Amino acid sequence: MTFWKEVEDMNNFAFHVPTDIRFGRDQIQCLPEELGKLGKKILLVYGGGSIRKTGLYDRIRSLLQDFEVYELPGIEPNPKLSSVEKGREICREKKIDAILAVGGGSVIDASKHIAAAACYEGAPWDLVLDRSLVKDALPVAVVLTICATGSEMNSGAVITNENTSEKLEINTPLLYPRLSICDPTYLYTLPAKQTAAGCVDILSHAMEQYFQPNDGAYITDALSEAVMKTVVRYAKKAMEEPEDYEARSNLMWASTIGLNHLLTVGKGGAWSVHPMEHVVSAFYDITHGVGLAILTPAWMEYVLSEGTAHRFARFAREVFGVTEPDDMRAACLSVEKVRDFNRSLGMPEHLLEAGVPDDRLEEMASEAVRTSGLSTRAYVKLGKEDVLKIFASCR
Amino acid sequence: MTFWKEVEDMNNFAFHVPTDIRFGRDQIQCLPEELGKLGKKILLVYGGGSIRKTGLYDRIRSLLQDFEVYELPGIEPNPKLSSVEKGREICREKKIDAILAVGGGSVIDASKHIAAAACYEGAPWDLVLDRSLVKDALPVAVVLTICATGSEMNSGAVITNENTSEKLEINTPLLYPRLSICDPTYLYTLPAKQTAAGCVDILSHAMEQYFQPNDGAYITDALSEAVMKTVVRYAKKAMEEPEDYEARSNLMWASTIGLNHLLTVGKGGAWSVHPMEHVVSAFYDITHGVGLAILTPAWMEYVLSEGTAHRFARFAREVFGVTEPDDMRAACLSVEKVRDFNRSLGMPEHLLEAGVPDDRLEEMASEAVRTSGLSTRAYVKLGKEDVLKIFASCR
Repeated sequence: MTFWKEVEDMNNFAFHVPTDIRFGRDQIQCLPEELGKLGKKILLVYGGGSIRKTGLYDRIRSLLQDFEVYELPGIEPNPKLSSVEKGREICREKKIDAILAVGGGSVIDASKHIAAAACYEGAPWDLVLDRSLVKDALPVAVVLTICATGSEMNSGAVITNENTSEKLEINTPLLYPRLSICDPTYLYTLPAKQTAAGCVDILSHAMEQYFQPNDGAYITDALSEAVMKTVVRYAKKAMEEPEDYEARSNLMWASTIGLNHLLTVGKGGAWSVHPMEHVVSAFYDITHGVGLAILTPAWMEYVLSEGTAHRFARFAREVFGVTEPDDMRAACLSVEKVRDFNRSLGMPEHLLEAGVPDDRLEEMASEAVRTSGLSTRAYVKLGKEDVLKIFASCR
Repeated sequence: MTFWKEVEDMNNFAFHVPTDIRFGRDQIQCLPEELGKLGKKILLVYGGGSIRKTGLYDRIRSLLQDFEVYELPGIEPNPKLSSVEKGREICREKKIDAILAVGGGSVIDASKHIAAAACYEGAPWDLVLDRSLVKDALPVAVVLTICATGSEMNSGAVITNENTSEKLEINTPLLYPRLSICDPTYLYTLPAKQTAAGCVDILSHAMEQYFQPNDGAYITDALSEAVMKTVVRYAKKAMEEPEDYEARSNLMWASTIGLNHLLTVGKGGAWSVHPMEHVVSAFYDITHGVGLAILTPAWMEYVLSEGTAHRFARFAREVFGVTEPDDMRAACLSVEKVRDFNRSLGMPEHLLEAGVPDDRLEEMASEAVRTSGLSTRAYVKLGKEDVLKIFASCR
């Protein structure tokens, strides 16, 4: 376990995020005009059908009456390769011009992968294993109904291969959505549990980018703190008062800003908790935010040391208002604060509570290290034994 | 003087910033490849010739050896309409494909106006008076050498009509630079005075967006605080240690983020101090940042009231670490903190020190109200008499 501190200055970076965001009440009225710029034959991708109950489905179909619309419903949480393959078939057969993803991260990620697969001759999973094979993609537009993953304004997509139990990311600039409609009132009908899981995910995205060795990118860290404070301020409120526009709008924008590169520029490195969680949810199909809530404090405790205390202390002070002047004590408080936050959202604290038994922890630990930068580029580099200890401490 | 508080929720907004930012050491090496995508006939626009002294001019000419390059040097601070007209002539005569602006806000703003004027048959000033006339523009690329205005990642340009003493903004999505190369080491040779004036400008941009009536956009305010803290943290350091990469890189990104719409989304309203300063520098050609330093604390003092104290108090606590629990007392401290900050950068406190006599204050006050949203949409609406009092308090 080594604390990586070679880099001190703000790293060089490129920042080029071409997604057109339309944020606020009833922004969906722009759909016919804006989607029309992308084409006439549309593949409408969505999830389990909640958009039919809320009326959003009808609204969209009525707005798209002059389009030729095909549908791919039933995208599952932790979207599966088989869904991507189904979508690709429709795109080819119907000569689809553009994909309209209506949903949260799972629907958007599946749509992005379909968009790339539609323009590729070989097997869709190839593109996940080697992103350089993505040479073109259909344009994707988004109507966001769950805020969490930030996929509405970034170029990544996480897909689960159910044959190999791999959950991996494909990421290339061709996958930026062209248009994302973000209407906070669409979040009003989200169940409290999903709201909570989304908030844990947003906080985790910011933390993954924040806990990196580079202290020279002060401004990026300060912007992260702004996003993290926002999540801590509004998460419980959104659960308790689901139609509170202030809470929903602030969380929705936090999720978008939280993973559109703004919080990572100048820093870099590899993520720590997400790769561990991706293996857990690939093996047991649990809710991503629940897995993060369990693993995050365990990871914090494990990597907290003399070398990392200053950053955990800054996190405690800036995000949770801790006033403790001693760095190590403030850092320890930060772990407690994150546990308290998760508890306040009703999150489980142990893997078993989430339906994850302890008989494959070793296999999962190997897989987490194998499929990520955990052992090479993470804030604190972790090998298989380290990850196993973290898993074990969450049993 | 009315405190505008009709809007409470986060406003609807669009966010679509297509500029490709290349940030960091020696990013200029991408110039031939990226500029090549925009064309072969280039108009190189720059200022007083400091880029010749630093060697940047030679580096660029050598990178552009395969391009057909024409030059428009000598763009003045507070760029003038006559420079725009000169640039437009070259664009037409030489059939220029793209403009390369090498400099700070003045050079970039002049280049943007030239880019639009080159595609318009009538008089260039028409476009400033009626931005709907801008139907097309040449692509603009930027190599940034002064950080202050944020023009490298936004769609605005401020131009002075020397015939009418008007200093006005043209702003339309066609004017986003396509590419902006931001290398913090180019700031190493900036004179301390220019560094200071730039920092005052960055802080003012964030303040203009922050001091608006809408309290519902918490996240936007928190992001503003992150930018403002960054400026306060590094401004003096950059003056004292001009080759400190950490200070220069953080300030450079603060200036870009500070005015690329991120800090205004969900808030809206009109600016207060900039319209007053624009009149002063249009009449007397003083440095923009110097004018802002003088006017900002005077404006703060004038609009501070029971109705606005909570926001000034938040500003004092989050940006300057003031711990005073009483809102009005904290708000008063915020004025002192801004004065202290300006003083620490060696800024003058009175108009006369900056070469602005007091015999045209009334005329300037009328003009500030006439050419802006001061009396209709500002945080605290100000009429001519109010502006005159603010000017008078800075004599």
